[in-house]
Amino acid sequence: MTSSPAFDPPTIDDVTAAAERLAGVAYRTPLLESPLLNEALGGRVLVKAEALQRTGSFKFRGAYNRISRLSDAERARGVVAFSSGNHAQGVAAAAKLCGTKALIVMPDDAPKIKLANTRAWGAEVVLYDPATTSREAVAQAAADERGALIVPPFDHPLIMAGQGSVGLELAAQAADANATLDAVLVPCGGGGLISGCALALAAEAPGVPVYAVEPEGYDDTTRSLAAGSRQHAAPDAVTFCDALRAQTPGELTFSVNRRLLTGGIVVSDDEVAHAMRLAFLYLKLVVEPGGATALAALASGKFDGRGKTVAVVASGGNVDPETYCAALARAAD
Amino acid sequence: MTSSPAFDPPTIDDVTAAAERLAGVAYRTPLLESPLLNEALGGRVLVKAEALQRTGSFKFRGAYNRISRLSDAERARGVVAFSSGNHAQGVAAAAKLCGTKALIVMPDDAPKIKLANTRAWGAEVVLYDPATTSREAVAQAAADERGALIVPPFDHPLIMAGQGSVGLELAAQAADANATLDAVLVPCGGGGLISGCALALAAEAPGVPVYAVEPEGYDDTTRSLAAGSRQHAAPDAVTFCDALRAQTPGELTFSVNRRLLTGGIVVSDDEVAHAMRLAFLYLKLVVEPGGATALAALASGKFDGRGKTVAVVASGGNVDPETYCAALARAAD
Repeated sequence: MTSSPAFDPPTIDDVTAAAERLAGVAYRTPLLESPLLNEALGGRVLVKAEALQRTGSFKFRGAYNRISRLSDAERARGVVAFSSGNHAQGVAAAAKLCGTKALIVMPDDAPKIKLANTRAWGAEVVLYDPATTSREAVAQAAADERGALIVPPFDHPLIMAGQGSVGLELAAQAADANATLDAVLVPCGGGGLISGCALALAAEAPGVPVYAVEPEGYDDTTRSLAAGSRQHAAPDAVTFCDALRAQTPGELTFSVNRRLLTGGIVVSDDEVAHAMRLAFLYLKLVVEPGGATALAALASGKFDGRGKTVAVVASGGNVDPETYCAALARAAD
Repeated sequence: MTSSPAFDPPTIDDVTAAAERLAGVAYRTPLLESPLLNEALGGRVLVKAEALQRTGSFKFRGAYNRISRLSDAERARGVVAFSSGNHAQGVAAAAKLCGTKALIVMPDDAPKIKLANTRAWGAEVVLYDPATTSREAVAQAAADERGALIVPPFDHPLIMAGQGSVGLELAAQAADANATLDAVLVPCGGGGLISGCALALAAEAPGVPVYAVEPEGYDDTTRSLAAGSRQHAAPDAVTFCDALRAQTPGELTFSVNRRLLTGGIVVSDDEVAHAMRLAFLYLKLVVEPGGATALAALASGKFDGRGKTVAVVASGGNVDPETYCAALARAAD
């Protein structure tokens, strides 16, 4: 399996088509605001609450956009995906809605909530040991055996376009809130969400700087943007942002991101935990580590949002209670 | 101070007027749904997420509806309120928006987040020891000294009408979601929220049963509905639902509730903790103990929602991290 089939990157028309396909299926998640959080951070902060999406993260959007376009023959054979858990749930839920079956290859150390919910959506889960096994190889073997289609986690135009519907909604909701955006910060793993959002924002809010926010250790997009070519994370990198452990940007995602992003920002796990606590205290929103990096960039001051209006995407909320409460405690004043 | 001045109870026209006054000021909070939660509970569950309201609970609605109608002379003298914390924040935020000052009498054992946020909204906070002091007396003395108006926590037509805007939104959002409601469950302390909601629902979804859900020990409305007259909670009752520790229904609220409610349901603290965990896992919504009683009634089976479409109000999310995480742990399988 190659990570980047011979597709062209999506355009804004693909994002718009995805949004139409997702209408009434994906939730139009709210753009939250807390006056006290604004005061605490010294600017206006708008939070796109994708933790409230159907499967607890934005991943449902891209998965549904891809799976809803299967041919009858493809639908009969089912789909395969590999994921630490958010793409897993997105694919599982989309497969269920579209009347096909899903097999998901997941690491055996994935958060328990992600394993349980992927199964609850009706998918078959195959575990692998990430220390010894390549998930791509396990997924490819399973797909070959069934003649099933692999739904890639980010590097596909329909996946990117589906995630881009977040950006279309964000732009419209910001306008409804009389907000003129000075910047948009988006969590970044393989770059699917931010590439789609960047396409949407380039059309709907042209000129607004868009930044990728990554956890320390998995700063491959940040370094790739600086270098102008795809860089890799260190193989021994460690972060509790399980959703953002992509080793390198996708080919398609990076081709969009290098053109449209202003840059990357890297945050520490401590800064992420602090952001999770702010979301708890002020927004009443459960945000998982990987979903909190964008807010962390703002709250840590690594992006200086004082006096500005900044939108951040809170991309997911699938986190085990133990991990969550450890983060809240770690971030206590 | 008497708890019930000589007012008539509000009508649906008052609720509608309140909703118009609150448009663009209070947030139109989302009606959340989780397919996996539906599956777990065997019915369709719609959750009105008032934890996402401007001050983290519905209380802002009633407070703003009252305070926005102060005369210039009243506004110059400021307002006084007593509250364990949600009404406190609602009054503080509404006072700030309306250009008046607020003094709030709060118990010294109120959740830290409620004390901190009430001060952050700019209110002056006066603490009292609930074991030895009457909050009404402290509030009355402060009000007399300043010639300030007391904004009561529930027993006032403008407060009730403001909270009723929750019910108007809920009915409209349920219709948008193609849901025909079989029942609506609402957390109940003094009865302000549920009385306003009952007025709204009687107009917008006539015939739908509405139930008050109270914590064990503070089941005064449940017993009052059964007895047909206002009953009192035991003075030594204990619950971690700090927001629902009202000793007895209001006169005005009970006059509405006895006419419009189908009955009351009483839930234990364990059942509430379990509901808080469900909201964490499936809805990604932080719900405080008092805000989770309605979901607890459903999840515990005390209200049998299997095969039904039931809306519950999650009325607030102002809870300290320690209390929250203890509840999540307590409810672990």
